[in-house]
Amino acid sequence: MAFTVRTRSSTSRARTGTLHLAHGEVQTPAFVPLATKGTVKTLEPRDVVALGYELILGNTFHLLLAPGPELVAEIGGLHEFMRWERPIITDSGGFQVFSMGHGGVADEIKGRRGRPGGDHGSGSILAIDEEGVRFRSYLDGGERFLSPEGSMSVQAALGSDIALVFDECTPFHVSREYTERSMERTHRWLERCLRWHADHGPAGQVVYGIVQGGVEHDLRLLSAACVASSASEGIAIGGSLGREKAQMHEVVDWTTAELERLAPDRPRHLLGIGDVDDLIVGVELGIDTFDCAIPTRLGRHGVALVPDPSTGWRADLAKGRWRTATEPIQEGCRCPACAGGFTRAYLHYLLRAGELTALRLVTLHNLWFIARLMEDLRAAVDAGRLSEVAAALRAGAAPGAVPADR
Amino acid sequence: MAFTVRTRSSTSRARTGTLHLAHGEVQTPAFVPLATKGTVKTLEPRDVVALGYELILGNTFHLLLAPGPELVAEIGGLHEFMRWERPIITDSGGFQVFSMGHGGVADEIKGRRGRPGGDHGSGSILAIDEEGVRFRSYLDGGERFLSPEGSMSVQAALGSDIALVFDECTPFHVSREYTERSMERTHRWLERCLRWHADHGPAGQVVYGIVQGGVEHDLRLLSAACVASSASEGIAIGGSLGREKAQMHEVVDWTTAELERLAPDRPRHLLGIGDVDDLIVGVELGIDTFDCAIPTRLGRHGVALVPDPSTGWRADLAKGRWRTATEPIQEGCRCPACAGGFTRAYLHYLLRAGELTALRLVTLHNLWFIARLMEDLRAAVDAGRLSEVAAALRAGAAPGAVPADR
Repeated sequence: MAFTVRTRSSTSRARTGTLHLAHGEVQTPAFVPLATKGTVKTLEPRDVVALGYELILGNTFHLLLAPGPELVAEIGGLHEFMRWERPIITDSGGFQVFSMGHGGVADEIKGRRGRPGGDHGSGSILAIDEEGVRFRSYLDGGERFLSPEGSMSVQAALGSDIALVFDECTPFHVSREYTERSMERTHRWLERCLRWHADHGPAGQVVYGIVQGGVEHDLRLLSAACVASSASEGIAIGGSLGREKAQMHEVVDWTTAELERLAPDRPRHLLGIGDVDDLIVGVELGIDTFDCAIPTRLGRHGVALVPDPSTGWRADLAKGRWRTATEPIQEGCRCPACAGGFTRAYLHYLLRAGELTALRLVTLHNLWFIARLMEDLRAAVDAGRLSEVAAALRAGAAPGAVPADR
Repeated sequence: MAFTVRTRSSTSRARTGTLHLAHGEVQTPAFVPLATKGTVKTLEPRDVVALGYELILGNTFHLLLAPGPELVAEIGGLHEFMRWERPIITDSGGFQVFSMGHGGVADEIKGRRGRPGGDHGSGSILAIDEEGVRFRSYLDGGERFLSPEGSMSVQAALGSDIALVFDECTPFHVSREYTERSMERTHRWLERCLRWHADHGPAGQVVYGIVQGGVEHDLRLLSAACVASSASEGIAIGGSLGREKAQMHEVVDWTTAELERLAPDRPRHLLGIGDVDDLIVGVELGIDTFDCAIPTRLGRHGVALVPDPSTGWRADLAKGRWRTATEPIQEGCRCPACAGGFTRAYLHYLLRAGELTALRLVTLHNLWFIARLMEDLRAAVDAGRLSEVAAALRAGAAPGAVPADR
């Protein structure tokens, strides 16, 4: 891979660039939709392409449990299996394995409350040691084992363009001491992942290390230095990013500042963050790619992204207030739902009636919204007008309506 | 409306023609996908257009209960509400109202076994009399009343191109005496529907009467004569069509033979029939349009239509035997699922994982399959080769692969 930086902002750490991956190029900063189980939920690959996305994220943990890497490899890899021709990043499974065992790390890391165990609370960790993690499958209750080498070999079978190293993902509530010991193990696992990949990794697949260290300033710097000094070609930021958005922004700030000093030319991925305001901050702090369930998950709950910061950029279309609303989700939006002429009243009705078409339409809108937001931010960086465009977007400008000299 | 017949088969009652409706033309014989609650389940209108469909069917009963005809009318009618620009036929609600009260009429009429009450067993009839039917809403338990005039006024508010008259739909198990009394009431309701429509019906909306009479030969002829002598511009065949396919074909045969004699130029719709073999027989017997839940409902259960009569033209992709199958649903098929390159293994996996994308893909395939089947039958009639093409399709020829001089 090569990552080429095109423009560096003079007022922030933001930059635009291009990831040159085995299956094509990705313009950055970019949002990466989740294809957790080998499909962007409710959509076909052609839909995701039409929305403008160049990179999606598949989930090593889920694909390991079903259909299994052997079958995916037999059919020709994840690209061929799910019929997506553009680049794919796979996470390592670390986040999912540990989110089962650390009592709701998934929700805690994202600053959300929820049921313990995240999306798959029925699984559980049986043992963590230096070798790896033994856990129960949420599908069949059977024992499974995942190690740094195991994760890399699954990602090799999947044939992703970008593989993430296997890390221990610690939640907010653990002690500084646990966070530090866990980080050190993650660093040792990083080296094992890179060693396995150097010997066995598929040609063209690049590996991103992951910076851990919780909310501890010194640990984040230590971890950033460790990953920067490794042979990983890209750097992801993971683990606990704090209880609140302000703390998350601070942790990212510490980390990208250090990475800017130590590895300015390597691409940076922020794991699991995708709120509209967080994407804007993330770009300003020098993040190149983001993945997150939020736009698609909200879509399947009937919550549409809208250019209105007073509502957290959200409109819950299942609410009774939209029962007779004749406006589209967003005036002037050119997504398939809005340009298709569907009213909020119709979408509200379909959601209440349990019609799957509605989940698809709101998903299409949300991913369109985020794709245009990222386009605006890229254009703004290139035009040297990021502060202005970011301020407009924060004030509720519609993505796609505030282009910077496009 | 005008219905123009283009070609009459010399070897059967089959014919090709064109329905000229308020929102456009429909080439017949045609299959009509269900948009029961104002959407073809899992699809957008643009998908249904791309599949080649010119006419869909909306459900008066369901749309009456939610969102209600007032809201639909306020937004500009069902076309505008659901953003479908081509013709729409609405059923009268009779079938749904009576399927709640007659102990599983829905399944019985279709020769299927199932839970009593059909899809909405929680509703129930409170009283049937000459005026209409009082029943409980399956949504909120509230009392509702539907009469011939009420049904027509709902269909007027929906603004469909074709409205069906309100009929009592009797199941197979009732006595000949009940069937006869019920048919006579349906005939009186036919006149009330036509009178209401003459006074209040929207311009451009045409009305189809419905032939009842169960499986009684003389009653079917009597009912056909009654509807043929009425002012209805098209004729639907409804009610119990028997316990088995052979009996259903016989009942349709009696009815279309009589209609061919009495009203040869009026279009004929067969209600609720859509198996592959039944569509072929139906065309041979002179049916012009068919509606049925089968292709879309099977799709949402992961059952794909395939050119294999030995399986009833069905492949259940959720079955374990497809876990590693690298072939598409149907070799050579150009539907979005098959041409998209998705394997049976992938679809099987998605179905097991509960991914909505799979329901959409199989629905797209099934509706594509049926659209091509109807195209083949139309081309065959026009080319004077229906017997030959019907025989090939019955033997397992792939629709779209046996064109008659196209």
